[in-house]
Amino acid sequence: MPAPNQLLVDLFVIFAVTKCFGEIFERFSLPAVLGEILAGITLGPHALGLIHPSDTVYSLAQVSAIFLLFMVGLETSPQEIIQVGGKAIQVALSGMLLTFVLGFGYLSLRHQPAHEAMFLGTAMVATSVGITARVLSDMGLLQTPSAKIILASAVFDDVLGMLLLAFVVGVLSPQGLNWISISVLALEAIGFALFMIYVAPRVMRRVSPRLERLSTRNPHLVMALGICLLLSVAAEKVGLAAIIGAFFAGLIFAEYAHEWNLRSGVSAISELLTPYFFFILGAQLNIHLFTGPVLVSALVISCLAIFAKIVGCGVPLLSLGRDTALQVGVGMTPRGEVGLIVSLIGLQMKMISDTTYAVVVFMTGVTILVAPFLLRIVFHKERSAMLQGETESAEVALQQEQT
Amino acid sequence: MPAPNQLLVDLFVIFAVTKCFGEIFERFSLPAVLGEILAGITLGPHALGLIHPSDTVYSLAQVSAIFLLFMVGLETSPQEIIQVGGKAIQVALSGMLLTFVLGFGYLSLRHQPAHEAMFLGTAMVATSVGITARVLSDMGLLQTPSAKIILASAVFDDVLGMLLLAFVVGVLSPQGLNWISISVLALEAIGFALFMIYVAPRVMRRVSPRLERLSTRNPHLVMALGICLLLSVAAEKVGLAAIIGAFFAGLIFAEYAHEWNLRSGVSAISELLTPYFFFILGAQLNIHLFTGPVLVSALVISCLAIFAKIVGCGVPLLSLGRDTALQVGVGMTPRGEVGLIVSLIGLQMKMISDTTYAVVVFMTGVTILVAPFLLRIVFHKERSAMLQGETESAEVALQQEQT
Repeated sequence: MPAPNQLLVDLFVIFAVTKCFGEIFERFSLPAVLGEILAGITLGPHALGLIHPSDTVYSLAQVSAIFLLFMVGLETSPQEIIQVGGKAIQVALSGMLLTFVLGFGYLSLRHQPAHEAMFLGTAMVATSVGITARVLSDMGLLQTPSAKIILASAVFDDVLGMLLLAFVVGVLSPQGLNWISISVLALEAIGFALFMIYVAPRVMRRVSPRLERLSTRNPHLVMALGICLLLSVAAEKVGLAAIIGAFFAGLIFAEYAHEWNLRSGVSAISELLTPYFFFILGAQLNIHLFTGPVLVSALVISCLAIFAKIVGCGVPLLSLGRDTALQVGVGMTPRGEVGLIVSLIGLQMKMISDTTYAVVVFMTGVTILVAPFLLRIVFHKERSAMLQGETESAEVALQQEQT
Repeated sequence: MPAPNQLLVDLFVIFAVTKCFGEIFERFSLPAVLGEILAGITLGPHALGLIHPSDTVYSLAQVSAIFLLFMVGLETSPQEIIQVGGKAIQVALSGMLLTFVLGFGYLSLRHQPAHEAMFLGTAMVATSVGITARVLSDMGLLQTPSAKIILASAVFDDVLGMLLLAFVVGVLSPQGLNWISISVLALEAIGFALFMIYVAPRVMRRVSPRLERLSTRNPHLVMALGICLLLSVAAEKVGLAAIIGAFFAGLIFAEYAHEWNLRSGVSAISELLTPYFFFILGAQLNIHLFTGPVLVSALVISCLAIFAKIVGCGVPLLSLGRDTALQVGVGMTPRGEVGLIVSLIGLQMKMISDTTYAVVVFMTGVTILVAPFLLRIVFHKERSAMLQGETESAEVALQQEQT
């Protein structure tokens, strides 16, 4: 008798436990995404070891986050991103600089070599907007002004982080800094982002009537999914994160999301796939690595990483009020796969030690775990206003029914 | 600079070419699924070699068909399956017997050893309802009486095929036939199927109001996807195909599909994932294996496989008219992964030769390629009636508008 397909078993078990943890957290008014990540930490191979995801699940998890960001893109419009563009650039730039300076400064103060300090600073820079997007979407707050600024800043942050990495690698390589290749890289990434925000939606407006003529079932959804995968690949080609490409794809289709009924489909796909992303995020965290002085150093770096983004990203927005500044700063704190990739490159180039790599992993984990809590706190006002609005409109409907 | 994630590139390229081939076939009024499979055959590693799917894509393809059958289940109701149950058992049994006898007889006539002939006969038995379901769903004919009988028969066919495999393995094993273990197997599989059809929908009716109380977003969809994965695993545990479990899951939720808006979500998931299934189905077909006498033998077996199901499954239904008999017979012709698994077990037990294994692969390919054509022909009347109905109602609407 053939044994059940192991992948299928993995997929079921991870889906079930992740959703259960999420549900339990929701019941206690905690962010569901935190439960999903904790499912990975506690049941994954490094702690209880009850679930050992196969390589296929790891690979699947890597790509599954793109559908989350695709959905977030569908709920944003390019105009809104353009409106907050100027502010978002300031937020991203100021957050990047402060983070890099603090990371670099701390290791330098502790007499670590300069190359190690530069790589750590770079690995601390890149915001991963997946967690923030998920929390804001769970709370129904993607339409707030702060959410728009966060999303736009995350796009610029990714471009800047990529350029900083190229710069640091250039400075540290024996051939020295190659300004031409860095300029080409910068032009590619900036050109891609500008094209996606300014030109692609217009192209889409031209092309969209022709989609009706396709013979496939669900032509709009198929086209949207195809473009989402294409732009994720294209974003990685120009050195950005795949999820940024998926977010752009969502932006392009945002205008048509309602007319073509794209949201329910894409949200179902994201409902199915993103649990694997968050579970694996947790499963990769090895809690045993951190003892003694490494733990202290890791805690300091984590605090610096959170402080740097809250202050660095918040300060340019103080003119919009302290609440907005704080919301955007907190929204930019979670780090993710980009930082891990940066430190992996550092390891391969023998520029950072195993300890520093472990510290980056720890810092990523802390920002991921802390961000959902902080987001709930700083968006508390908006959330209760929204809930009250819902109650009021329900009451109005009830009164109308009664009269 | 990190290269783009290879899995993401694979996923995009396969999605794009598969959908393009499907679209081109639709334009020429050919079944889209045929185009999708041909994309795999021509671009896959055995022919042009332009696309070499990674192991992850192969694994993903294996599980992705479950969402297709889940959707088909959602469009069927348990009552309808129960109504045609008696007929479906006759269809499955008669089709199985004729197929086995013809396969066994042909190899015996060609003086092959009895164990080889028995295994070939067994490998020819199991219908894979994926192709048929896809074609009928594309043509909008899942609600016809013939489609109901085909779906119900495919369920019984899977149970019977699994028992036949256990029987043949038992007869050929040195310990001889173990009636107890076969009876346990039979009870498990039959019990599972009966429970799913008769009991599970009632349990669901009890449980469904409680789903509203879950705090997760989309609680109904999440629960449906979880149950779909669970029953796919459970079906494999009792020796059935995973897709049969997914079909049962669909049946359970069929009553609520409209109320909970499950169909658009599940169809989006299936739209995203099934292209990989059909592409890999094609990519696994090695067209170079077949030359000279092997080709002749493979062609004869393929013809027998098609003939046996059309006649074997059609005859019990002659009382319902020749059209229905032919439709069900043709609908039961496509073979799939179950036959391949059977012959793989035969190979491992050294009961069949490499040539016979290749013949089974060839036969599977032929039935998969021929079935969509034949289905279009035998469902021609229903299809034009449906299309005319649509035109008429459009005309009526137009007239009403004009007056």
